[in-house]
Amino acid sequence: MDMKKQLTADQALVEEALARYAEQWPELGDLQRAMAYSLLSGGKRIRPVLTLAACRLFGGQAEKALPFACGLEMIHTYSLIHDDLPCMDNDDFRRGKPTNHKVYGEATAVLAGDSLLTAAFGVLAQAELSPEQIVRGVACLSQAAGPAGMAGGQILDLLGEGKTLTYDEIVQIQNLKTGCMIEAAVRLGAIAAGSTPEEEEAVAEYARKIGLAFQIRDDVLDVLGDEAELGKPIGSDQENQKSTFVGLKGIEGCEALIEELTEGAIASLASYPGSEFLCELARMLAGRTK
Amino acid sequence: MDMKKQLTADQALVEEALARYAEQWPELGDLQRAMAYSLLSGGKRIRPVLTLAACRLFGGQAEKALPFACGLEMIHTYSLIHDDLPCMDNDDFRRGKPTNHKVYGEATAVLAGDSLLTAAFGVLAQAELSPEQIVRGVACLSQAAGPAGMAGGQILDLLGEGKTLTYDEIVQIQNLKTGCMIEAAVRLGAIAAGSTPEEEEAVAEYARKIGLAFQIRDDVLDVLGDEAELGKPIGSDQENQKSTFVGLKGIEGCEALIEELTEGAIASLASYPGSEFLCELARMLAGRTK
Repeated sequence: MDMKKQLTADQALVEEALARYAEQWPELGDLQRAMAYSLLSGGKRIRPVLTLAACRLFGGQAEKALPFACGLEMIHTYSLIHDDLPCMDNDDFRRGKPTNHKVYGEATAVLAGDSLLTAAFGVLAQAELSPEQIVRGVACLSQAAGPAGMAGGQILDLLGEGKTLTYDEIVQIQNLKTGCMIEAAVRLGAIAAGSTPEEEEAVAEYARKIGLAFQIRDDVLDVLGDEAELGKPIGSDQENQKSTFVGLKGIEGCEALIEELTEGAIASLASYPGSEFLCELARMLAGRTK
Repeated sequence: MDMKKQLTADQALVEEALARYAEQWPELGDLQRAMAYSLLSGGKRIRPVLTLAACRLFGGQAEKALPFACGLEMIHTYSLIHDDLPCMDNDDFRRGKPTNHKVYGEATAVLAGDSLLTAAFGVLAQAELSPEQIVRGVACLSQAAGPAGMAGGQILDLLGEGKTLTYDEIVQIQNLKTGCMIEAAVRLGAIAAGSTPEEEEAVAEYARKIGLAFQIRDDVLDVLGDEAELGKPIGSDQENQKSTFVGLKGIEGCEALIEELTEGAIASLASYPGSEFLCELARMLAGRTK
């Protein structure tokens, strides 16, 4: 199967699974609707796709990794809901649609985020994998999303607003805020495949590099992107007085960094046959326009 | 050991373990301090004590249940932080101290709650129990705290403000909001002990009854309690226009209900030797003044 067909098939697999999970939550007030609104709002599903691809790379059945992939995407979704809250980034739009709290109110948005985060670990626990694999998955996801990972990155990101940060400081924030979860995505796939520690480490190295490239591309798109295509206003980094890769390295410097990181990511998988999908995905993400 | 000594010893065990977990989180901005501020603010630790006691009742080593007990208490703590936010109950004081967002600001309070919730599942994953037991613990806690449990109860609680609710509606809200987590507390202890399904069900029945009695006592104390002893203002239910057990059943009706539920809780453990601690704890909670 060629790369784009595989990507579309994996995205569909994830969409269907997420929709099935969303149907299982009880209707209490607007809570289930608010959870489903953000979870099923048509993201690119890059993280769960990475989980499935990493599982497949190491000889696992991608379907078995689906609960891990979906749990991770639920946690990614909760982080977007909370990140958009008035006390955080105070955003009105996300993926071209009103943000969760704009539709359901702040209290429900807080609880919808909390609920997605809580339910995510229950989804992992339901995976048809060995209990050892599930426990490793839970530990991996908790570590990546928690105070030493994504949540820690979010607080540094908020603190960094209005300050001039060095390149290393921005890299630290982005690695925590975004990188940890992208790394967790492939680690979860490797765990679901029953991979060796060396295999897991190779794909984690790939993920760290594409994660940073992804973030640099985000900064570039915030300056050069097309609002309609992105589904969010451009220039928000400047408005929020955020230090960015573009501010420090310029557009050309960023493009060079993205290329270097992408080639490095691909190189880290060189000794694994069947890594074409992940290599092409890295190139696609590097060149994305939304 | 008599009941009060055992309670004090278990509370100390929990405090020390929670303090050790809090030391493991990295110092990023105020995040770690905000998490520790609420986690180590001297609650009664009823839920984790129940976990340890249920484990002991079924022949398990209480120390082995400690990660389960602490993970549950971290989730309880996150729920208090988020519940106090301006967009939720908007409370300035909790246990006699300023609420988390009053000290650290709203954004940090949101992230501190998210981080406690996320880290909790990682704490469970570290338990020195079989992977099967850990997976069951994760599933139990996710179910109890998520949209079909505590979070669902919170949304119904918010929706109920200003409305006249029936007794059954209040019971449903309280069972979800508080009862599910008290039931999960003893189930986690039973899981850690490797109990039989019958044993787990008996202690769950005990927990459902003391959980409801606990909530009715809360409503009574909100009318009759001593502000200094409670550490929070009384009369807040009336102020928030909440339907309460006191409003529906009167003080005397509530006292009768508490007694009936407490005796029922005790009866559900009648066939288990060594249940004295849990029985005395039920009586103590029924008669508490704070």
